[in-house]
Amino acid sequence: DEELVATPVVHYMMSNLTNSAEAEAKQETVLILTPLARFYQEYWDNLLSLSYPHELISLGFILPKGKDGNTATQLLQEQVAKTQSGSKSKRFASITILRQDTESPLQTQSEHERHKLENQKARRAAMSKARNSLLFTTLGPRTSWVLWLDSDIIETPPTLIQDLAAHDKPVIVPNCFQRFYNKELGRMDVRPYDFNSWVDSPTAQAMGEKMGKDDILLEGYPEMATYRTLMAYMVEPDGDTTKEVQLDGVGGTALLVKADVHRDGAMFPPFAFYHLIETEGFAKMASRLGWKSWGLPNYFVFHYNE
Amino acid sequence: DEELVATPVVHYMMSNLTNSAEAEAKQETVLILTPLARFYQEYWDNLLSLSYPHELISLGFILPKGKDGNTATQLLQEQVAKTQSGSKSKRFASITILRQDTESPLQTQSEHERHKLENQKARRAAMSKARNSLLFTTLGPRTSWVLWLDSDIIETPPTLIQDLAAHDKPVIVPNCFQRFYNKELGRMDVRPYDFNSWVDSPTAQAMGEKMGKDDILLEGYPEMATYRTLMAYMVEPDGDTTKEVQLDGVGGTALLVKADVHRDGAMFPPFAFYHLIETEGFAKMASRLGWKSWGLPNYFVFHYNE
Ligand SMILES: Nc1nc2c(ncn2[C@@H]2O[C@H](COP(=O)(O)OP(=O)(O)O)[C@@H](O)[C@H]2O)c(=O)[nH]1
Ligand SMILES: Nc1nc2c(ncn2[C@@H]2O[C@H](COP(=O)(O)OP(=O)(O)O)[C@@H](O)[C@H]2O)c(=O)[nH]1
Ligand SMILES: [Mn+2]
Ligand SMILES: [Mn+2]
Repeated sequence: DEELVATPVVHYMMSNLTNSAEAEAKQETVLILTPLARFYQEYWDNLLSLSYPHELISLGFILPKGKDGNTATQLLQEQVAKTQSGSKSKRFASITILRQDTESPLQTQSEHERHKLENQKARRAAMSKARNSLLFTTLGPRTSWVLWLDSDIIETPPTLIQDLAAHDKPVIVPNCFQRFYNKELGRMDVRPYDFNSWVDSPTAQAMGEKMGKDDILLEGYPEMATYRTLMAYMVEPDGDTTKEVQLDGVGGTALLVKADVHRDGAMFPPFAFYHLIETEGFAKMASRLGWKSWGLPNYFVFHYNE
Repeated sequence: DEELVATPVVHYMMSNLTNSAEAEAKQETVLILTPLARFYQEYWDNLLSLSYPHELISLGFILPKGKDGNTATQLLQEQVAKTQSGSKSKRFASITILRQDTESPLQTQSEHERHKLENQKARRAAMSKARNSLLFTTLGPRTSWVLWLDSDIIETPPTLIQDLAAHDKPVIVPNCFQRFYNKELGRMDVRPYDFNSWVDSPTAQAMGEKMGKDDILLEGYPEMATYRTLMAYMVEPDGDTTKEVQLDGVGGTALLVKADVHRDGAMFPPFAFYHLIETEGFAKMASRLGWKSWGLPNYFVFHYNE
């Protein structure tokens, strides 16, 4: 009946949808979600080099309105068209591109501007809304895992998805570092980039209790010393890449989440949630829903260096 | 290129997606979401009688695991099959049926059991998770409005969607009443059913401040008198059906939400959120996101009478 095809009825047993340590063997689907204000070719090349079967991967992007958003959209669409018409093994199952009806809150998006303390609340509230829009719009009944991956993550192990899924955790985050030229040493070196993955401290708790309802705690600002234990500083030289630490806050540059955590309601609070916002607030919300967050201090992904 | 169809790339401009007072004229799509533990034929008949163009309506259902869930699923699927193969004008655009991997927390689902104070927190947390699962899984890039409609709402005006949308509010709730046989008067009568739509009170605020972090305020229990202003009691005889009141808490038996409110991140907290849970917590979360909730005290929908 042709008419019935036009009005599809689908029935999903959620118990048939697994998210397990054997993600690839069980053919579990992954939705990679990227809020994208700037397009980096290195990001796309790295994405293509992921060895998880691309036919099990769907991609979702959200881009801001305005001039920068237009440029990024054009560059993204060129690569999408190339990949999806190229070698079958590289093609992704489906790709959704959303264009926001709002511009990026910071007109100038230099790292210096983005990271100014006074710009953080508005910026991260806007980022949260972009992430939520993307998530609520693209998560489907067949999604087992969601991999959050920022558009300026330009280097990960090709086995990133398998490696993270193997830990079988509700929420798991690698350590996000940055390559740079160390002038003193006269050679390339690495340094921590993302400070949003941490274990909470009594100091931060006490600071939160004295704050106004809408105030947020931020990490990595000397004027707001939290004494939290940062995963960025837990690296051991030649340490075990599978070592796990339980976390209270997570960064979202690369973050693997079991889809059930989101389905239960865990989103990125665009408002102060226990004085936390965005990905850090997400970890707190997941914990209120009974899901624990974990980090891998010795397993690295790399952020672009502007 | 046949292969390209198999790997769809879709591009959505969110600014093209409106949700306006002229919903029908602008061909805005509505997603009707129903958590369904028991199937009522009167619910389905009422759904079919909605005059909003069915080709603009998608339906989403979530049903619990277990014996009752099986029975309800079978009854639902029978009606779905009948409707979707029947008269074209009655068919819906698409239908998604999700089966939870959990049972309903209350084995016995009599109204008396459901409404016991000590059962409320677990029951409403489970309801919140069911609602979130349904929402996160079915909301798409083309959805303009979400109509939450409980499976025991058996009578609404056929113009329900147009009437509610005409108010052009982020969140709007009709007054949920119940028909019953009034023995004293010797005739059918109506009485309030849902007490979750209210304007907050200083008493309730003060009670919240004295509570533990995980404790919740509930409405309609004499042992927990909140002195909130309940929409259930704002009815005026022959009152204006378009009269609006701004609310702080909303019920979810019938509830129209602009999809953007959900996309920003508003979900149904399964945990105490400002001491509120489920649909009441949803209204608070929407308000934290800058979206106001409204009620129509003189516009009615009717709940089944067990
Ligand atoms: N859609 C969207 N994406 C954004 C916006 N601002 C930043 N992004 C993207 O969100 C991610 C994180 O932002 P970024 O500026 O790199 O954060 P930082 O590395 O913490 O400074 C990156 O993938 C950006 O491209 C925005 O306003 N809208
Ligand atoms: N999926 C699902 N739906 C449920 C569950 N419990 C109740 N419902 C449905 O959720 C809605 C509200 O529940 P109901 O028991 O009617 O609440 P009440 O009217 O406030 O007592 C109705 O549509 C029920 O059929 C559950 O455990 N899972
Ligand atoms: Mn970045
Ligand atoms: Mn009911």
